[in-house]
Amino acid sequence: MTVTTPAGFAAAGVACGLKKSGNKDLAIVQNLGPLTSAAAVFTSNRCQANPILWSKQVMADAVVEAIVLNSGGANCYTGSQGFQVTHSTAEAVADALKISAGDTLVCSTGLIGEQLPLDKLVNGVHLAAEALAHADAQTLAGGMNAAEAIMTTDSKPKTCVIEGGTADTGMYSIGGMAKGAGMLAPGLATMLVVITTDAHLTSSQLDTALRAATRVTFDRLDSDGCMSTNDQVTLMASGASGVTPELDEFTARLTEACTSLALQLQADAEGASHDIAITVRNAASEDDAVEVGRSVARNNLFKAAIFGNDANWGRVLAAVGTTGAEFDPYDIDVSFNGVQVCQGGQPDQPRDLVDLTPRAVDIQIDLKVGSHTATIWTNDLTHDYVHENSAYSS
Amino acid sequence: MTVTTPAGFAAAGVACGLKKSGNKDLAIVQNLGPLTSAAAVFTSNRCQANPILWSKQVMADAVVEAIVLNSGGANCYTGSQGFQVTHSTAEAVADALKISAGDTLVCSTGLIGEQLPLDKLVNGVHLAAEALAHADAQTLAGGMNAAEAIMTTDSKPKTCVIEGGTADTGMYSIGGMAKGAGMLAPGLATMLVVITTDAHLTSSQLDTALRAATRVTFDRLDSDGCMSTNDQVTLMASGASGVTPELDEFTARLTEACTSLALQLQADAEGASHDIAITVRNAASEDDAVEVGRSVARNNLFKAAIFGNDANWGRVLAAVGTTGAEFDPYDIDVSFNGVQVCQGGQPDQPRDLVDLTPRAVDIQIDLKVGSHTATIWTNDLTHDYVHENSAYSS
Repeated sequence: MTVTTPAGFAAAGVACGLKKSGNKDLAIVQNLGPLTSAAAVFTSNRCQANPILWSKQVMADAVVEAIVLNSGGANCYTGSQGFQVTHSTAEAVADALKISAGDTLVCSTGLIGEQLPLDKLVNGVHLAAEALAHADAQTLAGGMNAAEAIMTTDSKPKTCVIEGGTADTGMYSIGGMAKGAGMLAPGLATMLVVITTDAHLTSSQLDTALRAATRVTFDRLDSDGCMSTNDQVTLMASGASGVTPELDEFTARLTEACTSLALQLQADAEGASHDIAITVRNAASEDDAVEVGRSVARNNLFKAAIFGNDANWGRVLAAVGTTGAEFDPYDIDVSFNGVQVCQGGQPDQPRDLVDLTPRAVDIQIDLKVGSHTATIWTNDLTHDYVHENSAYSS
Repeated sequence: MTVTTPAGFAAAGVACGLKKSGNKDLAIVQNLGPLTSAAAVFTSNRCQANPILWSKQVMADAVVEAIVLNSGGANCYTGSQGFQVTHSTAEAVADALKISAGDTLVCSTGLIGEQLPLDKLVNGVHLAAEALAHADAQTLAGGMNAAEAIMTTDSKPKTCVIEGGTADTGMYSIGGMAKGAGMLAPGLATMLVVITTDAHLTSSQLDTALRAATRVTFDRLDSDGCMSTNDQVTLMASGASGVTPELDEFTARLTEACTSLALQLQADAEGASHDIAITVRNAASEDDAVEVGRSVARNNLFKAAIFGNDANWGRVLAAVGTTGAEFDPYDIDVSFNGVQVCQGGQPDQPRDLVDLTPRAVDIQIDLKVGSHTATIWTNDLTHDYVHENSAYSS
């Protein structure tokens, strides 16, 4: 049920002292081949962490043999010294695994603006390399250790496995792990994700599939509107199954894997008490639907109302009205958990009929101008969110 | 110290039962002339309340004799019935004051999506008209009653007076009142504002001055990123001083009045424990400076950190990085309350040196690419904000 489920991958997660808690804080996922295909998507934040700058260089030839990830520090806004730490980490991995540093991705997550201790990182790489040499690195245990090591404020590790293929093409699998509980906003949602597959696909095929899958999954998760500097989703293929699936079929399975991880991120968002799905229907374009959904997802008054179990649909429409999407402001329908509280821009069913006590909240917004639909996933704004994010670095 | 300080204005505030508390909830400000010049700016939200739709019609000829304002209900998303209530309210004012309904502005504030009771409004208009007939309607008492009547979650009335003019041109005054404590975001900030002056100026001159003043005051207040459906800033000139100031001088004084009211709105923002001024320096353009400042002002993680007295400058840069402004992501300076915590995109002074216990917080962001500056005013994200906005309509 994680990155080691697909054949041809080993993973390890160790504690090297980056986290004051002593918990696991460094992971390596190694692609044992025969293929070394890979694709990655990165944060669209213009302020990018050193590991992002490094990993983009590594992806130039789309060959990846291993990825090393640390929690306990983002290595962002740490200047040339910070970049050197990232580079040296990749070289330590390359030395230990007898691979090229240029084929080694690096991901970091944690507080921005603090230098990472290179000695601890290098020690962690050695510990992880030892673990990778053991047989259980290719089993569930190895994958789960890695998933634990990338956690920050996450309350639990996040993993998934999807089986793909057909009787005709043969079967393959996709495994994934993710971390992320805050700074969860699109382009990408704030997180680190590693997805593995034993399907036999080229890097170019992986890239096409990954962009298609993230566009409708991680890019539509917007927990708190705050985009991180360290987001990275990496997909690696070992080809070890020997199966080359149809790309459409693989993309569909990959999208299922990304959806599973995105919903796990949403469910574990810092301080959240509701998981909110905002579906915008009958928009003139998919972009319009996304823009409207995201505007509502980022409206603090709406999010606070959901926390208070208050079906305050006026706040939904006030947020819709700030967008440039095509609609008639006075002909919109809104429903909360199946109760249509607004029809044609006027009150319909009493808001008191809406039951917002379940964690899952379904908001439907009908723009009535086209045929496009999109769903944005977000969370409510709670006391615990404020608490956790006012105390994070202290 | 309010809208009745300038000569030629009367004001009243009464209780007519719109608020369950029994507090004052309806105000009228009447321009007694000799001029009936006026200008107004409205919310840029595309979902606009019925009073906004009405008031835009009234402003077509830029003649305003009176403005009626109610709290206790926004009359937004109430359909044709709601528009009829607004229209009938204007007609009731016109009847009572012997003026034209077409010269009567209407403003409403409160919950969206609920019909206002017309009988109570009409009764309130009659009570206010009686009060306007008394001598004290042209004194401080009348103005303060009006300022109280437009409060919603405001903890105190917000008023200002600015004296203008020169020995050459003669002296005049500007008075203002405002309400607003939540949904405080630009274009305009969520609020109702009435500003009066006894300067002798045309509606066209007032419009020029008002747009210039609001652009650098109310439009730069962004307490919670949530734009209202009911924002309206109205400026009325009676000409009663007989003084025609230079337009530049009048605009400068009007900007002072708007700044005073905007800062009073910020200081009373729902649940806030810090008033934050985010100044962006050396931007390539004023628009860039505003975009960067607003992005930081809307970042929940930054706002929660300030609540926690945490100088988490990484969250500032992560927010800067989501903008399209011109800058080098790795050459930005950031200071918190005079302590430069980031220089050239790298850690500078320890964040522990920053004292964030005072309510006033000064954030300086130096983009180092041009010569333009702008300041955005915002608030922190607190437990009380979440509490007040999760319980507002219940």
